[in-house]
Amino acid sequence: MIKRTLSNELLGSLGQAVTLQGWVRRIREVSAGLVFLIVADRGGETQVVLSGSLTTQLPTVESVVEITGVVQTSRSRVFPHELAANQLTVLSQAEPLPFPINQAELGVGLDIMDKFRPLALRHPLYQDVFRVQHRLLAHFAEFFSQQGFTRVSTPKMVATGTEGGAELFKIDYFGETAYLAQSPQFFKQMLVGAGFERVFEMGPVFRAEAHHTSRHLNEFISLDIEMGFVEDVNVLMDLEESFLRSLLQDLHERFSTITIAPELPTIPRLPLGEALGIIHREHGKVSEDGNIDPEGERLICQWAEREHGVPAAFLHSYPRHIRPFYALPGVKNAGLTESFDLIFRGQEITTGGLRQHQLNLLLESMRERGLTPEKYEFYLQVFRYGMPPHGGFAIGAERLTMQLLGLKNIREASVLPLM
Amino acid sequence: MIKRTLSNELLGSLGQAVTLQGWVRRIREVSAGLVFLIVADRGGETQVVLSGSLTTQLPTVESVVEITGVVQTSRSRVFPHELAANQLTVLSQAEPLPFPINQAELGVGLDIMDKFRPLALRHPLYQDVFRVQHRLLAHFAEFFSQQGFTRVSTPKMVATGTEGGAELFKIDYFGETAYLAQSPQFFKQMLVGAGFERVFEMGPVFRAEAHHTSRHLNEFISLDIEMGFVEDVNVLMDLEESFLRSLLQDLHERFSTITIAPELPTIPRLPLGEALGIIHREHGKVSEDGNIDPEGERLICQWAEREHGVPAAFLHSYPRHIRPFYALPGVKNAGLTESFDLIFRGQEITTGGLRQHQLNLLLESMRERGLTPEKYEFYLQVFRYGMPPHGGFAIGAERLTMQLLGLKNIREASVLPLM
Repeated sequence: MIKRTLSNELLGSLGQAVTLQGWVRRIREVSAGLVFLIVADRGGETQVVLSGSLTTQLPTVESVVEITGVVQTSRSRVFPHELAANQLTVLSQAEPLPFPINQAELGVGLDIMDKFRPLALRHPLYQDVFRVQHRLLAHFAEFFSQQGFTRVSTPKMVATGTEGGAELFKIDYFGETAYLAQSPQFFKQMLVGAGFERVFEMGPVFRAEAHHTSRHLNEFISLDIEMGFVEDVNVLMDLEESFLRSLLQDLHERFSTITIAPELPTIPRLPLGEALGIIHREHGKVSEDGNIDPEGERLICQWAEREHGVPAAFLHSYPRHIRPFYALPGVKNAGLTESFDLIFRGQEITTGGLRQHQLNLLLESMRERGLTPEKYEFYLQVFRYGMPPHGGFAIGAERLTMQLLGLKNIREASVLPLM
Repeated sequence: MIKRTLSNELLGSLGQAVTLQGWVRRIREVSAGLVFLIVADRGGETQVVLSGSLTTQLPTVESVVEITGVVQTSRSRVFPHELAANQLTVLSQAEPLPFPINQAELGVGLDIMDKFRPLALRHPLYQDVFRVQHRLLAHFAEFFSQQGFTRVSTPKMVATGTEGGAELFKIDYFGETAYLAQSPQFFKQMLVGAGFERVFEMGPVFRAEAHHTSRHLNEFISLDIEMGFVEDVNVLMDLEESFLRSLLQDLHERFSTITIAPELPTIPRLPLGEALGIIHREHGKVSEDGNIDPEGERLICQWAEREHGVPAAFLHSYPRHIRPFYALPGVKNAGLTESFDLIFRGQEITTGGLRQHQLNLLLESMRERGLTPEKYEFYLQVFRYGMPPHGGFAIGAERLTMQLLGLKNIREASVLPLM
């Protein structure tokens, strides 16, 4: 079998014959009998020099080629080395492209990007987005494994939603109605109580939100953690902040595209009510439903940047009526909850908090909201057999990718946002 | 906040006061005013000595407790150290259990295990199963990342199945019919062509198979890889074999429950036809459809164990009619395919192979099977713009967990096999 050399491995083979395989990213016909190709592979790009008979029948741009030649030093300012080709085989000839992908910017709208997604993804900017996302997911798994968390994979086909019936996709499950999981919330709590104590999951969740915005996807990757024996919501915020700090260090060592400084100043923590007060005082903006809206999220991050040098804020102490039934009521004020959101560069990327672990109070909270506990017996059961105080949070992987890279639309952070 | 000490951290605190939190796994009343509790936490188990007034109101078995006391040496043969309690708080009192979980074997059927899943999972044997699975997934991600693979997360809601209409769960997608993905097959191929070259995914897949067997789940975790610039199916088998070897070493360093030796002899590779011949010759068993069945899988692994010292076999060169339309026809015999299955301890755990990367031949193959290429344009598009020769495989995570641990039913290898 042919030994393949990647673009980033050429350096070690000066003067030697190697075989390169990749996509013809660019063709420059210098003169009769002299053509430069730029060939892209997963290691980067290589300048290939074609001469003589090799220039008579050129591959089209984006064709897949295999080129054997000798590595030599180059006079190019971009490529210190180049490949002087002896042999060129076209493995797959490309048809004319719908748009060029060898420009510094891709320069097409999201509709065209969606239509020709695999082609658009070949652009180095998008290759980079998903290498960052790969590392983000790897770092999440490594960080929480080190903290004693066990990775779990919970069902995505479920009999009931986590908070009643809204925004659920229906499935036909052998003639019965089932749903796609909006979140692994119940399952991760059950697994804390199942003795794992600390669990994490990295999996798809599904939200049937009909509106299309630059920050919503109907299917996204949720990075969930849940832990037992925690009674102070600050422990959860500490944990998320450590994770983010550790992630930023890791990404900065590997990527130059991260648009946020590696040293993250301490993220301020303030009650939602106080955040709404700041927004009102500074911008005259009044919240109609007692919650913060997307504009408010942008404003509070501007405030945090100015006052604390970090474009992020943990908001906590959300009122009970805007949090789910399982949220633990406030220790000092039972009208509030021991919960939080993390707003990061103007957008919510995390929801978390402590949960109610006492069965009688949990049942009371469900009844107050008109929920029928009998339907949730699969969830409630573990609370009967010894359930520690617990809490957790979930980070949207595409949202975090988007905010780390300064992308404008969340579809740019989802590799194949089909449908 | 209280500093918590885990069971496996007691050793370092001899003579000191510590706080332990966990589940009361066992209660032994030694005499009036002297009770031993065994408390379980994620670090293991601790013997706790209660005396005097602490013995007057005992928690129930499986209650969650917090105990402060002094670490002392013990006369127990099992526990070199124990905790002499000064204070005991019940954080969550357990109701009477439906079955005991503090026995060496759980001793209940799968129906009861399913009904009381979180409780059953507290048994050390099941804690271990999912810690092994955690490490299996971590090792998969680490191994393939090191080989230059990029992790991707592809859609689970899809417009069309990978091989026609069978075994698909239907979804109501805003009034349109969509399906749950049976496999990321098309997507991973598209992403190879999208310039990532090497991708892996660890995510749920969905199969609407109505039959219930000890080896099928309707939803399971598929460990998928796909790579470009591969033209010999042996490269894929080499890669999977290296992964398994590396995984076994890793698991053996951490777990004593793996029931297969860490040094894996070379797994034999034989054409399916040859495997069927062996089964016929040795057991008089004739294949009716030209494929191997579950009994045949057991028999061929017995043969491999006897002849090659390893209870596994790569079967390859499957006939075209029992492989999907995208399988690459055999280089030497076009009636066969460049594909393989890995049979491991009597059960198929992997399907893989080279794929057809030439658009005209792929279209021909689709038409032969009565498929309408127009419906698959989202998949076919990338083949028009430069598609390298490629191939890959998928491992069922629960199947592999089951075979590594010698479990009898695949439901034991799925943490919450609900519905």
